Parts: sequence; structure tokens; C-alpha cells
Amino acid sequence: MIDDKMNDFDSSMMRRCLELAQKALGKTAPNPMVGAVVVQNGQIVGEGYHPGAGQPHAEVFALRAADHLARGATIYVSLEPCNHYGKTPPCVEALIAAGVAKVVVGMVDPNPQAAGGIEKLRSAGIEVVVGVEEEACRQLNEAFVHRILYKRPFGILKYAMTLDGKIATSSGHSSWITDLAARNVVHQLRAACDAVIVGGNTVRHDNPHLTSHQVEARNPLRVVMSRSLELPENAYLWETEEAATLVLTQVGANPDLQKLLLRKGVNVVELDSLTPDKVMSYLYDLGFLSVLWECGGILAANAIAEGAVQKIMAFIAPKIIGGDGAPSPVGNLGFQQMTEALTLERINWQTIGPDCLMEGYLPLRR
Amino acid sequence: MIDDKMNDFDSSMMRRCLELAQKALGKTAPNPMVGAVVVQNGQIVGEGYHPGAGQPHAEVFALRAADHLARGATIYVSLEPCNHYGKTPPCVEALIAAGVAKVVVGMVDPNPQAAGGIEKLRSAGIEVVVGVEEEACRQLNEAFVHRILYKRPFGILKYAMTLDGKIATSSGHSSWITDLAARNVVHQLRAACDAVIVGGNTVRHDNPHLTSHQVEARNPLRVVMSRSLELPENAYLWETEEAATLVLTQVGANPDLQKLLLRKGVNVVELDSLTPDKVMSYLYDLGFLSVLWECGGILAANAIAEGAVQKIMAFIAPKIIGGDGAPSPVGNLGFQQMTEALTLERINWQTIGPDCLMEGYLPLRR
Repeated sequence: MIDDKMNDFDSSMMRRCLELAQKALGKTAPNPMVGAVVVQNGQIVGEGYHPGAGQPHAEVFALRAADHLARGATIYVSLEPCNHYGKTPPCVEALIAAGVAKVVVGMVDPNPQAAGGIEKLRSAGIEVVVGVEEEACRQLNEAFVHRILYKRPFGILKYAMTLDGKIATSSGHSSWITDLAARNVVHQLRAACDAVIVGGNTVRHDNPHLTSHQVEARNPLRVVMSRSLELPENAYLWETEEAATLVLTQVGANPDLQKLLLRKGVNVVELDSLTPDKVMSYLYDLGFLSVLWECGGILAANAIAEGAVQKIMAFIAPKIIGGDGAPSPVGNLGFQQMTEALTLERINWQTIGPDCLMEGYLPLRR
Repeated sequence: MIDDKMNDFDSSMMRRCLELAQKALGKTAPNPMVGAVVVQNGQIVGEGYHPGAGQPHAEVFALRAADHLARGATIYVSLEPCNHYGKTPPCVEALIAAGVAKVVVGMVDPNPQAAGGIEKLRSAGIEVVVGVEEEACRQLNEAFVHRILYKRPFGILKYAMTLDGKIATSSGHSSWITDLAARNVVHQLRAACDAVIVGGNTVRHDNPHLTSHQVEARNPLRVVMSRSLELPENAYLWETEEAATLVLTQVGANPDLQKLLLRKGVNVVELDSLTPDKVMSYLYDLGFLSVLWECGGILAANAIAEGAVQKIMAFIAPKIIGGDGAPSPVGNLGFQQMTEALTLERINWQTIGPDCLMEGYLPLRR
């Protein structure tokens, strides 16, 4: 009974850490989101979260807030405290110096560079509990964990389709498929991601903004993949006061357009070969955690085939548009039998206004 | 307060009527499903439902069960008691003869032939309340109401697609898209419908059974629409011990196959022109209430365009198959702009096992 109550208390403190961590949603790359809470005699005496790379970690803010009350206290932190000198000194040293009695950790740090914090704390005589609300902690930092394990950003393929499986009419018209509520979710999603990718077709046909459309919200880097660079001279994506844009292409493509784009403030980078995996590798080197694929079916199929997509977010609108040649969300994957289909895991269906959102994870690549 | 309690009691009695009515689901065409309950001093003293055409109505069964306790009682009936001599004498006369004090009616009969029951009862000094649980009563008999109002059976388009909007792979393979639980729902749906329609392509590619796959459940009439009659000589649909099959074609099509089918016990009917509306008109004349379209995208689009579909039931599986030429659920409707899409009404999303079922109604034809 007492144990249960203790577990409930630990869980609620860890959930508070996650709430704090999320205040920096979309702003921490390449770092994880982390929250920390200092508790003395059952009362919260300090809170903190990591606001972004180069700034102090969550534990440091929480200890500062707790001040002398940190001595003998329990600190809850959603990720294992770091044990290395990065841009800031190791958190374990700060915890030891502050004299905390106990550290409750949500999840172990998957980053081998940062690991060892738990042992160091225990060697210093501090009680350490690991794995409280672990699943929720992993979920919040799924992109960070993926980045560490696979040395690529976490890829999310997002699309909106009609109930009869089309992402546009046969003439290519697509505004709007879903209702306002679903489009707001997409805008929030963009604010949480580091980059959003489209192909040249999307620029030519849809002329999208790809921004979060929210006051004071950050915008992801807008990335265009185009081999030919046969892109319009005017497009919302070239208006870089709104948000930054990066065009990725192949060596030597359309030098005139390259010059024009550079003049407009659009970054243009030539890659040896323009494939989804090369692009993800490039974005990894930029320190990105999460990348949103908002492309058409051909590029989406390539991204899936190359393992550049881990999660799918499919918005489905309760409307019928028809159309023989109308495009569908995913192009050719080379499957002949229905049994070959990629069955999503950890799926979740939810309604958003009149529409439905399906979230699920692609099976790990064999 | 007393009124509320009374309304709750009335509602619960009417819901019992609907439960009883549903015992004849799929068996009453061209009649509606109706249930009745006789209540004396707050106790149910008789129940009944209409088992099917040619058999007594629900009220008659309930009065029989109540016997002398019907005198002075209240009878609840989900549809207005009939006032005409059809295959059975008018129910209003039976109610008056039994001496009931009050009749509570779920919904008015949309059939002008059967109407007038309420006035007749009131003229006989019986108290009549109309419209208890009316929406649920209309829902149960939506096919019957449609049949009466539009002189066509109620059309349901059912399909199963992947999360990327395909009903088969690019090579045409489609078994299975949804999981067992969703397929069971389809089997129950077939048992509730009077006919299920496919086109020639479905027979050639899928060789379906189109049965309810349930012990002791009835099967719908299996209907194939084929202009050319270029159909395989052997197909599950030609095995008529399992369920009856009707092939609808055009005058003079493939006489050899016609003879072969007739020898196998398959009914073949030549229509002047083989369109979805002509087919629905033919099935109306057979007395059918509800028709399930389980066809491919081309026929589905034609059926929608001709107003032969009122309701859509879309099963969506959380899997990605891809495929450039892979078929989607609805072919060409002639729409160029997304704003022209048919937005479904009274929609409902629900999960069934890992899959999702969207039910909704097409807007009324302009």
C-alpha cells in the first residue's frame, strides 16, 4: 500500500518532469528534451528544463531554483544525468555538489558519450532509482533516441487523403482535404520538427508555405529535394523572411536557378547523389532530431524504401473525390502480394474534428 | 421529475422493441423490422416482433403473448401500427379489439399505403404517443424508409483499403487487407443485406464467395453485373448450393456462358441497359430493402454517380502496400477541384481490432 502510494507519487513527479521538458519542444536539437523536479519533504522546491543546445541542462535549473533546499532532497529527472563535459559541465557533479540524497531517473541515456551518470552517482553514495514512467520518457524523446542509435534524424511521413485514398484530384488540386482542426495539428507538428521535406513536384503544384502558421512558434527548416532544379522562380518557399529554406540538388543542376535562389536567401547544396538517405545523412550532420516528410507519393515511397521514415501520420477526411489518375499517398514499393504490405506497429487511431488521424510506426528494417 | 422517469421508462421499453425487431435483421424484405411490447402495471406482459413478409406483425405476436392482460395495457411499437389489409389484417383493429388503453409509437410509417393507423386508434378513444426513440427507430429501418421514399433499395458501398488508399496491389492481389475482426463485421453486414453486387472484374480477379460465412445465417442474393459476360466457367459464385446467384447482363451477351450458368443453377437476366440505377430498379421490384456494393472502383464510381449508393462503409487497415497503378476504391467522378468532393454526413469512425471503420452518408442528390 505504501509502495503503491510511493509509486504514484514518483510517477506524478516524473510526469511533471515531462511537462517541463516539453516546453522546449522542437528547440533542443541535437539535444533531448529533459525536465527535472527537486522534492524536499514531499514538496516541489525547484523545477527546470533544458531550453536548448548550449544552455544549462534541466537538473542545473532545478537545483538553482531549489537552492539550499536541494541538500538531502530527491531530484526527479526524465533522462539519466550526463557524466561528460560537452558545452556544459557534467550534471552528476552538480548533483553531488548540491548534496541531493536521491535521484529518480526516467530513462537511461542512449548516448554512450553521455552515459555513466548513474554509476557515478551511486559511487558518490546517492540512491538512484531508474525507469519511472520510462515508456513516456522514451516516447517524448523518440527522435533523439533514434538519432543516437541510427545516426539519422527520426523521419515522419505525414499526408492527408480522402476516404477514397487520394491526396489530390486527377488534375492535382488538393486544397483542402482535411478540416481546420487537423490542419492545426499539422502546424503544431511542424513547430515540433527540425525540418520539413518536399520534392519539386509539390513546389510546382501546391506552392506550399510549410510553416507552423503560429505566432511566436518556431518554423522548421524547409527542405526541397530536386534533381533537375526545374523549379518556379517565385514560390512561397523562397520567401525566407518567414522561414529558412534549403534546396538540395545534384552537382551542376540549373546554375541560373541556383544563383536566383541564393540571391533570395535560399540555401542551395549540391549532393553527390540526391537520395532520401543522403538527405537524412546531411540533416543528421546539421544536428537535426526529427524530419517531417510532406512530399508526394513517389518521394514518399523512396523515403520508405530507404528507411528514411520511421513513423507515419495519416490524416483521413470523410470525403470522396474519385479520379482514375488521382495521386495516392505512397508510390511504388515493388510489392506484388498484399501479404508483403508493411504493417504498422504501435498504432493509434483518433478523430480530429470530422477527420481521423492514424499514427503508427513502420516495422524495423530487416 | 415524474415526467423524466416516465420518459426514461418509455425509452427503455422502445429500446426493447428495437432489440426484438432486430431478431429478424435481413429477413423482412420488403417489410420493415418491427418490435412490440405490452406493458401492464409497469410489467412487460407480452413481446413480439415481425419475423418476415407474410407472417403476422409484431403487435399481433405481442398481443397474443399478453392475452387477457392486454386489456387496459400500454403497447409500445417501434413503427406506426398499420391500417390496411395486406397479407395480414390491419393491426389497429387487433389493438382496438384487444382493448389496449394506450399506444406508444416509435416512428410514423413512411409508407402511405400503411398510414392512418394513429388517427384510427385515436378515433377509437385510445391514447397515442408518437416519436419515442424516433431517431433509433428510423436508423434501424433506414433501408425500408429509403425504399418507400425513393422506390429503390438502400445502397451501401463497402470497401477495404490500406492506409495508403489501395484496395489491391498493382498486380491485383487483395487477400487480405483487413484483419479477422473487420472481416467478421463484413460477414454480419452481408447477413443483414438482401443482395451484394460485384462487377465482372471482381469475379475474374478475386473469385469471391460473398457469403456471410456464418452457420445458420442467411446469405444475401449474390449479384454480378457484367456487360460482356466474359466470366470464368468456374467460380465460387456459380456454386449455388451455398447461396443463390443472379447474373445481370445486356441483351444477347455470350449465349454459351448464359447456358452454362443456367445449368449450374445461376439465374441470368438480360436488362435493356446495364447501369447501376437499372439494377437497383430491378432489385426494388424483387422487394429488396438493402443492397451492398462490394465492387471495384470503376463500378463504385458509376454507382455513386447514379445515386445507387446512400451510405459508405470504408474499412482502413494500418498497412502500406504502395504501387503506382494499384487500384483505389472509387474511380472517376469527373471532379477537378478538391472542393467538389462529396463530403459525407452523419459520420462515425470506430476501430475494429487493428483496423478502422468509417461509416457515413452521401449528401442527398441535388
